[in-house]
Amino acid sequence: MQKKTITTMVEEVFPQVVEWRRHLHQHPELSFEEYETSKFIEEQLNTFDGIEVSRPTKTSVMGRLKGLAGDGKTIAMRADIDALPIREETGISFESKVDGKMHACGHDGHTSMLLGTAKVLSEIKKTLTGEFVFIFQHAEELPPGGAQEMVAAGVLEGVDCILGMHLWSTVPVGEIQVTKGPMSAASDIFDITVKGKSGHASQPEGAIDALAIGSQIVSNLQQIVSRVLSPLESGVVSCTRFHSGDAYNVIPDQALIGGSVRTLSNDVREKIKDNLEKISTNIAEAHGATAELSYQYGYDPVFNDIDLSTKVMQHLTEFFTDAKVEEIPPMMGGEDFSAFSNVVPGCYIGVGAMKKKDDVFYPHHHPRFEINEKALKIGISYFVSTALFLTSQY
Amino acid sequence: MQKKTITTMVEEVFPQVVEWRRHLHQHPELSFEEYETSKFIEEQLNTFDGIEVSRPTKTSVMGRLKGLAGDGKTIAMRADIDALPIREETGISFESKVDGKMHACGHDGHTSMLLGTAKVLSEIKKTLTGEFVFIFQHAEELPPGGAQEMVAAGVLEGVDCILGMHLWSTVPVGEIQVTKGPMSAASDIFDITVKGKSGHASQPEGAIDALAIGSQIVSNLQQIVSRVLSPLESGVVSCTRFHSGDAYNVIPDQALIGGSVRTLSNDVREKIKDNLEKISTNIAEAHGATAELSYQYGYDPVFNDIDLSTKVMQHLTEFFTDAKVEEIPPMMGGEDFSAFSNVVPGCYIGVGAMKKKDDVFYPHHHPRFEINEKALKIGISYFVSTALFLTSQY
Amino acid sequence: MQKKTITTMVEEVFPQVVEWRRHLHQHPELSFEEYETSKFIEEQLNTFDGIEVSRPTKTSVMGRLKGLAGDGKTIAMRADIDALPIREETGISFESKVDGKMHACGHDGHTSMLLGTAKVLSEIKKTLTGEFVFIFQHAEELPPGGAQEMVAAGVLEGVDCILGMHLWSTVPVGEIQVTKGPMSAASDIFDITVKGKSGHASQPEGAIDALAIGSQIVSNLQQIVSRVLSPLESGVVSCTRFHSGDAYNVIPDQALIGGSVRTLSNDVREKIKDNLEKISTNIAEAHGATAELSYQYGYDPVFNDIDLSTKVMQHLTEFFTDAKVEEIPPMMGGEDFSAFSNVVPGCYIGVGAMKKKDDVFYPHHHPRFEINEKALKIGISYFVSTALFLTSQY
Amino acid sequence: MQKKTITTMVEEVFPQVVEWRRHLHQHPELSFEEYETSKFIEEQLNTFDGIEVSRPTKTSVMGRLKGLAGDGKTIAMRADIDALPIREETGISFESKVDGKMHACGHDGHTSMLLGTAKVLSEIKKTLTGEFVFIFQHAEELPPGGAQEMVAAGVLEGVDCILGMHLWSTVPVGEIQVTKGPMSAASDIFDITVKGKSGHASQPEGAIDALAIGSQIVSNLQQIVSRVLSPLESGVVSCTRFHSGDAYNVIPDQALIGGSVRTLSNDVREKIKDNLEKISTNIAEAHGATAELSYQYGYDPVFNDIDLSTKVMQHLTEFFTDAKVEEIPPMMGGEDFSAFSNVVPGCYIGVGAMKKKDDVFYPHHHPRFEINEKALKIGISYFVSTALFLTSQY
Repeated sequence: MQKKTITTMVEEVFPQVVEWRRHLHQHPELSFEEYETSKFIEEQLNTFDGIEVSRPTKTSVMGRLKGLAGDGKTIAMRADIDALPIREETGISFESKVDGKMHACGHDGHTSMLLGTAKVLSEIKKTLTGEFVFIFQHAEELPPGGAQEMVAAGVLEGVDCILGMHLWSTVPVGEIQVTKGPMSAASDIFDITVKGKSGHASQPEGAIDALAIGSQIVSNLQQIVSRVLSPLESGVVSCTRFHSGDAYNVIPDQALIGGSVRTLSNDVREKIKDNLEKISTNIAEAHGATAELSYQYGYDPVFNDIDLSTKVMQHLTEFFTDAKVEEIPPMMGGEDFSAFSNVVPGCYIGVGAMKKKDDVFYPHHHPRFEINEKALKIGISYFVSTALFLTSQY
Repeated sequence: MQKKTITTMVEEVFPQVVEWRRHLHQHPELSFEEYETSKFIEEQLNTFDGIEVSRPTKTSVMGRLKGLAGDGKTIAMRADIDALPIREETGISFESKVDGKMHACGHDGHTSMLLGTAKVLSEIKKTLTGEFVFIFQHAEELPPGGAQEMVAAGVLEGVDCILGMHLWSTVPVGEIQVTKGPMSAASDIFDITVKGKSGHASQPEGAIDALAIGSQIVSNLQQIVSRVLSPLESGVVSCTRFHSGDAYNVIPDQALIGGSVRTLSNDVREKIKDNLEKISTNIAEAHGATAELSYQYGYDPVFNDIDLSTKVMQHLTEFFTDAKVEEIPPMMGGEDFSAFSNVVPGCYIGVGAMKKKDDVFYPHHHPRFEINEKALKIGISYFVSTALFLTSQY
Repeated sequence: MQKKTITTMVEEVFPQVVEWRRHLHQHPELSFEEYETSKFIEEQLNTFDGIEVSRPTKTSVMGRLKGLAGDGKTIAMRADIDALPIREETGISFESKVDGKMHACGHDGHTSMLLGTAKVLSEIKKTLTGEFVFIFQHAEELPPGGAQEMVAAGVLEGVDCILGMHLWSTVPVGEIQVTKGPMSAASDIFDITVKGKSGHASQPEGAIDALAIGSQIVSNLQQIVSRVLSPLESGVVSCTRFHSGDAYNVIPDQALIGGSVRTLSNDVREKIKDNLEKISTNIAEAHGATAELSYQYGYDPVFNDIDLSTKVMQHLTEFFTDAKVEEIPPMMGGEDFSAFSNVVPGCYIGVGAMKKKDDVFYPHHHPRFEINEKALKIGISYFVSTALFLTSQY
Repeated sequence: MQKKTITTMVEEVFPQVVEWRRHLHQHPELSFEEYETSKFIEEQLNTFDGIEVSRPTKTSVMGRLKGLAGDGKTIAMRADIDALPIREETGISFESKVDGKMHACGHDGHTSMLLGTAKVLSEIKKTLTGEFVFIFQHAEELPPGGAQEMVAAGVLEGVDCILGMHLWSTVPVGEIQVTKGPMSAASDIFDITVKGKSGHASQPEGAIDALAIGSQIVSNLQQIVSRVLSPLESGVVSCTRFHSGDAYNVIPDQALIGGSVRTLSNDVREKIKDNLEKISTNIAEAHGATAELSYQYGYDPVFNDIDLSTKVMQHLTEFFTDAKVEEIPPMMGGEDFSAFSNVVPGCYIGVGAMKKKDDVFYPHHHPRFEINEKALKIGISYFVSTALFLTSQY
């Protein structure tokens, strides 16, 4: 198929995609509660000829389209569909109708682009070989995430590779970002409970000062990144919560330290986890206290398959002659696309969607977050053209 | 006057003192709210012949008794009258009738002993030279305390010296504790506000981590006691509150550290305050943050006049042949008797009042705190005999 | 020119290159003292027809060869020639004849390969266009290094780009390593002098404890890497020297802390330097001491020009069909090739030269360090073929 | 015996005491090497009638004098006799004749005063009851000290109590200082060896950084004094030596931390020792290293028997009507008089001996240290009168 054909079809589906997107924007639903959203997606998919629609979980949707021109590879594409507990302050005409909930991360865009992609491909199914799987995933924003549930439900059966993307409000429209290898970080959280012994502030000799010990733990934890990791490895240990003590005249018997760990590989992740435990327990013991680590694994790092992402980048560079396709280093944010790309080769890219007003734009998760709808065309083109390219039809 | 006479008079007044004490115990009032308590005290004093009663402040009472046998020294004696916001759990017959309030520090005993003392002395006023001032002080439990208000109201005018005492539920009846020089600690509190810059947990480079900086401050503050003070000076710096951060994925822009400082001299106190400021502001600056110290002076240390307390100890040793009078080191607790003893020579002693049930006894400020009423006799005897001794009439 | 021709010529010159290398290995000279070494290089170059030999500095040598077939690009190639103050323990037949000095970093190999390269190119100069510059650099091992002196002496005049390489005893023969962008680290050193006040160990109150303050500085410095740098930036701050105090009963008035900083960009480098100063001076001030930072800039990071190294890698992949050419991440070691590549586009690669005996091999700077001489052929081929490729003659 | 008689006899012996003192000052000998000094003492004692002289150890001397008037208590008196490795810079007429050695701590004074005391008492032996033991102790300046050797040799056999004193160059002549209870500190030293793993400064991931870990240990050790000890207990932990690392580019595998511990009681001492071990080993373990504590017990704290020192103080106050006798808090310095006072009740006092020149005076162990010889009279009077007082003869 020619680029021209694809471009034309994208132009045709675009107005409807915008409509879908605005509808979704007005009706945001939180993670694991995407009842209306998934129903809406299901309804739309059912209007496209040849799509076999199913519901892998209560609030997710899967569509499968078989090319009628013969067998071939099976390409999955994924969009996440959930919104955030944020009160919208954009003042746009299609603002959220649900107080305190907002599509402030662009998932409304992701969903509508994948709907558009499904529609375009369904319209040309007679000429297509291979199979196309449309994964509308719930609950990307809330660990443990919806992706692993969908994988468990079997959505990747027979799939050869999977494509994903994120609209970035902080990147100009026309820029496409590809990363090879580690692409997003594992994002875990931890809690350390330091237990000492309470006592009167004037009598430290009778107490075991959990607060002072907790402070030493935080200071010693800095050495994980500064001394245990290689400077060429990426890892973050941020203690983000420290709560200890209430009364001014009582040495607290407990300190609660919480925080976040980000890593680009499971090796580094385990190294950090081990050191969190070793350091906190031993520092506590040094002062006669105890410390207990509770570690919650979050999303795995997304690893873009080197071969696949090299091919995709090459394809995009050729296809988007007007856009700037660039290779960028990994980001430290988390993304549960990894649940899919852990199982089959995956490629997850970024698509610029910046919307400036008076030279100002807002980041993701901000009450004034907006996307530039022009970017939706680029996203659909990415999905359609890459799927065809990977099935040797572009 | 002979010891025998004093002992007899104390025995006589004792049943009434117990009655007063139990009445007060049933009707506790919090600091600065001792309306009924002060009214009660005033009423009793008015029944003793020759006592000139006045109200230095809304909830405190002063009685003055002039010996009719001639001029002489003026001896003040002080009792504190306020109760605590504690729900009593003793189950005694005269338990507090006010839910959530309790005389859990023995001030009911102090008050009734001083009433008994006033009664005894008023009965022998014809034979007495000099003058006796009975100070019923409000609000000892709540800084800035009632003592300084009473001093400001002039209660120490013409006073040569002042006596005070505390019943100790943790010391056996029959033990009397005297300290020469520094007797109780200055008790101050502080707050340090560390201000950094918020940021995502995965991007420390964009944040200034108030939590990590606060932890370094706590660690560095340890050096005040370990490196700045002389080992022969007494001082405590206890950080007792550390609150920073909420969300796991946000590096907090603020850390609130609070704590308590105890010292036995104003020199050491100022040295600690200066170092709290110097250390916290500079550690913050080291990491690009700011720290602000707010320091609340509490009660001054009680300094027992060396001459006076040496004399009093000698007297008590001779008078209480059955009791054990011992010199003890200072305590790190605070007491606003210092507002008086800063102005005139003072002597503040401890009187054992332990009440064991099934071999268990409870400390001050405990819901099961009790005193042994036998100690009341010792307390009255202390006041009466020492006042006579100091006016050269024992 | 065909690959076959190059390969043949390399085979022909190889025995002589080995001879040169062994001669150099037996006569190592330290940095800035390469008198015999440079004389030897000069003598050899003078035997190759058409090479214009000069001496940019006392112990360095430059050869220039003009292709006689016409004008073209000027390609520089660089070898470093100095040895190390290490006593050799290899026991090989051509062991160092100078006690305590040894070519333990492979510079004997680098030098002889570049001599071989010069010989090969001089023999085909009639067919060549463009110009070839052979830079035999002294003093790579000792900052401030010889490279900057040679640049100052004008060796890069008219040069279009420069090639360099390192033999790695830890990488198997047949592997070639290319890095695009940052390739080696800036390598700086620092000294922090903490000045407090001496005092008797029993009287901390009269002293300002430089040792305790120095310890706090080291702990606080950990936060540069853990909190100030991005996890995606590479930087190391290693405190490697801490010396304070002598007598057990004297609190030291001084602590000397020294260390090393490695960075892949000048931005990160300056950020670290600024924080070293800010943290050490403020921590010292927090405790009433002073700290002074002395920072010695070492070699700049080597930045492999992206275009040039992409081209070179492509060329090598095609040329070395038997070898494994791979892209690798930067190394944190330092290299003063940067003095050249800061001025003209440069490409510095690694060539495997592992020599196993009984399954054991030794790293650089080890008394038993050895290289596999087979690697010399690969190195000469790299220089010759790439120079021709870059002048469009391969 | 009357005060007048004592005073007269002290005046008579004084010129000879000064002569002895100046002779000793000119011939200083170091600890455990007091060969000539002890010979000199022995010779003098032999000239006093009735003194039984013996040599408990190679360089110490003991004299025993029996009162001929009857049995009674046995009172020991002790002087220390060793000098210091200091080059004298006083310029006085009787300056040290031994280069690099000096009586810079007043032991020449102590020795001559005790000789004077022995002479006075021997002259009145006919009127005396009881027994008097003169202990000339070697090696006070160098742990483990000579006192314990003398005790082991049996010098305290039959002794009821022991008196000691120190001349203080920093206290005006005419002041006498008595302390009841803890009088001087236990003075111990420790070494902590931290063992990590060496590595290149650019590769912390391959090393275990003993220097950084050592720094954390020093910081954490501060909490012994600030958090483990009571503010009413005296204790010092001073890390006075920290040595780690040499080369700038090598992370050191070892850190040596040494220091000093001073305490006034064995309880606090053991608490500190235990925490030194617990903290250093656990902090090391927290970071994958090991730490080993070596703890050298020094002199025990001198504890002045409460009864004895109360009596002595009372006696001195009455005897020295011209002098100022004052009770002072303990000092944190060490003194091996404790080896005696651990066995029999002891009383160790301070005698002012300040010598101002141009309003300047120098502390002990200073090259310009001097004592005021007038203080020698006070010292002899102290020994003679107190010995008589304690045997009920004053």
